[in-house]
Amino acid sequence: MTDYGLNPQRTVDELKALRELTGDENGAQRVAFTGQWLASLDFLKERLAELPVQVETDPAGNLWATLKGESERELWIGGHLDSVPNGGWLDGCLNVLAGLEVMRRVSWQYGGKPPVTLRLVNWADEEGARFGRSLYGSSAVSGYFDVAELSKLKDKDGISLPDALNKVGINLQDAPRAKEQLKNAAAYLELHIEQGPVLEGLNLPLGAVLGTVGVERHTITWKGQAAHSGSTPMNVRRDAFLAAGKFAQEIYTIAERYGGVCTIGSCKTRPGIVTSVVEECEITLDQRVLDKDKLAAMWQDAQDAARTFAEEGGCTVEFGDLWNIEPIPFHPELIEAVAQSILEVTDQAHRLPSGPLHDAAEVARAGVPTVMIFVQSLKGISHNKIEDTREEHLWQSVQVLDKVTDRAMAWILKQGQ
Amino acid sequence: MTDYGLNPQRTVDELKALRELTGDENGAQRVAFTGQWLASLDFLKERLAELPVQVETDPAGNLWATLKGESERELWIGGHLDSVPNGGWLDGCLNVLAGLEVMRRVSWQYGGKPPVTLRLVNWADEEGARFGRSLYGSSAVSGYFDVAELSKLKDKDGISLPDALNKVGINLQDAPRAKEQLKNAAAYLELHIEQGPVLEGLNLPLGAVLGTVGVERHTITWKGQAAHSGSTPMNVRRDAFLAAGKFAQEIYTIAERYGGVCTIGSCKTRPGIVTSVVEECEITLDQRVLDKDKLAAMWQDAQDAARTFAEEGGCTVEFGDLWNIEPIPFHPELIEAVAQSILEVTDQAHRLPSGPLHDAAEVARAGVPTVMIFVQSLKGISHNKIEDTREEHLWQSVQVLDKVTDRAMAWILKQGQ
Repeated sequence: MTDYGLNPQRTVDELKALRELTGDENGAQRVAFTGQWLASLDFLKERLAELPVQVETDPAGNLWATLKGESERELWIGGHLDSVPNGGWLDGCLNVLAGLEVMRRVSWQYGGKPPVTLRLVNWADEEGARFGRSLYGSSAVSGYFDVAELSKLKDKDGISLPDALNKVGINLQDAPRAKEQLKNAAAYLELHIEQGPVLEGLNLPLGAVLGTVGVERHTITWKGQAAHSGSTPMNVRRDAFLAAGKFAQEIYTIAERYGGVCTIGSCKTRPGIVTSVVEECEITLDQRVLDKDKLAAMWQDAQDAARTFAEEGGCTVEFGDLWNIEPIPFHPELIEAVAQSILEVTDQAHRLPSGPLHDAAEVARAGVPTVMIFVQSLKGISHNKIEDTREEHLWQSVQVLDKVTDRAMAWILKQGQ
Repeated sequence: MTDYGLNPQRTVDELKALRELTGDENGAQRVAFTGQWLASLDFLKERLAELPVQVETDPAGNLWATLKGESERELWIGGHLDSVPNGGWLDGCLNVLAGLEVMRRVSWQYGGKPPVTLRLVNWADEEGARFGRSLYGSSAVSGYFDVAELSKLKDKDGISLPDALNKVGINLQDAPRAKEQLKNAAAYLELHIEQGPVLEGLNLPLGAVLGTVGVERHTITWKGQAAHSGSTPMNVRRDAFLAAGKFAQEIYTIAERYGGVCTIGSCKTRPGIVTSVVEECEITLDQRVLDKDKLAAMWQDAQDAARTFAEEGGCTVEFGDLWNIEPIPFHPELIEAVAQSILEVTDQAHRLPSGPLHDAAEVARAGVPTVMIFVQSLKGISHNKIEDTREEHLWQSVQVLDKVTDRAMAWILKQGQ
């Protein structure tokens, strides 16, 4: 099978070179809008300069490289060079550098003019590590972007997001104009490390991503009665922690019922002293699943169970809202294109949802047909210097992105007819 | 049935008068070594002055009224006039004022010279509300009293216990000499409100107390693995909170198995953020039961269960010691005397352990045959201005203390033969 000049080892070499340039003994240090991040952009631009592409930065700070095609309709391949502090060597930049390699192959194969226009995009500040707001650049393009709210964000040193942007030549007020990039967008592809243990558990290198899950995030507070640990018989207690304890088990049943995940992340007890039954117990609950109706049912089941356990123990229960987002399903035909491409490289095409959000979610909700490819993460670990993926899996991931690119270009042409 | 001049209504009237003298709209304010506490001592001394008794303060600050008998062997009746801040009108002072009433009756009946010597004692600082050290006065008598350690105690205003004692004429260095009071002690009686809901739940006014329970107090810490709430499937999680949740239910089974009580008072989770599986979960566990072997078995079962739940969820578990005390059983023949006396006043003699500690526990571990009588607490509430007991139950409690006094005097005489 010919690889059309594709050289996946080059991608691995470039990832290592980028790590050398922008990391230290604690991991990757490419936090958005910092000097190391700018250095990573220069690293990319140097390589793009060898290709017949037009490079530009949009008003939000996203970097675009455009290889004009026969059709104005655009296939995008995206990723993000920014990292969390002490991050890994793959998260975000694999996407970009694999996209660069595919762009080289496409440019080489079509003599600089492919059938559709191909654009590589480096999204600005995917991680939100500094200002606590992830998907900054892609949301400027999607339009889910509130300048007034973003203006208030400050980093831990008190520097505001607008000031940090100004330093790198971006005016936050102009950022919404990045939306104009959408004009000819016909499809979006993103390769990413899984950042979870599913593919490793299945012993599979690659997976086709079905979409990003919806999230319901709430507090649940049970209220019982403080009572002396010595003088209060067990059968008259109104123990708020007992209700939470039952709930800790129940979320596993609820998650299994709908094929989602449920997480109790924190628990606080009041009065919280060794000699008193817990009067008040507050937990956080994070629920995720790919299907909108299932997400609603999961949250409903959680509330029902919380009420049942409250009643069983003479307690009351209250619910609070923390955050939520709807599931963002990817495009079925593009998912199929990824699955077919994976089958050309390995012998099994697993399909899985993405638990974390990605720039792909913003592009999808802007209405652009979107899909992602996941490559196995060792031990499911990310956002850490020990984040890793086997080199042969990285090669395969570049191959699959390349094959999906061909399929997506063909699909775009077919759509245009 | 003749009451030998006993007037339980007088006790209720005196309790109300004491409340008037030493309480405010927030409840009783007789914190030990304060002006209100001294006022309550004066209130008692005024009434003792009408009886042929010798009144003295021991070196620890306990007040003794001695009615000399034919025998030098002494029956003690004790209680404490001190209260917590914003306390109730009965906790501690019912004991003293009921004892005063019984002393009146005995003195009247025997023309000032009963068969055995009767002593009423007001223990200093039972509550430990100000310096965090309960049973101060009774432990000076029992000898479980460490002057060096007590010297370090300070109240929230930085005043040391020795300074506070000096202000009321007590020298902490001399306090251990209070132990000399034990010389002729032959039995000890204490009436107390239950401070729990057991008698009310059984619809009984009175109970014979079997002893004070032993306490095992520990921390339990499960350690699992922090993992992303979105990307980590349920079946690979090592969720420390799940182990704690199972344990929250298991303690009810363990408590039932041994007839004790088990309480999880607090729960802390780390990292404690909404987007992560709980890596570390620490709870406090307080276990109480009257039997020493059962207490050991309860704690062993708790450790076994904690380990099982850890293993089931891929976690580890560690145990920490907080505090413990052995059970202090009361004297079986005196318990029987209380039960017989209760049966003369009501139609059922319930026996129950005391979950909270009392001065009686110190006297018992000093080797003096001891028993307590509990009278019903409404709603089980104490240490609060709404603490209350029905007046007819207060009358009955004074009657029972009176009858137990006769039985105990007879028992002492029999012991002496």
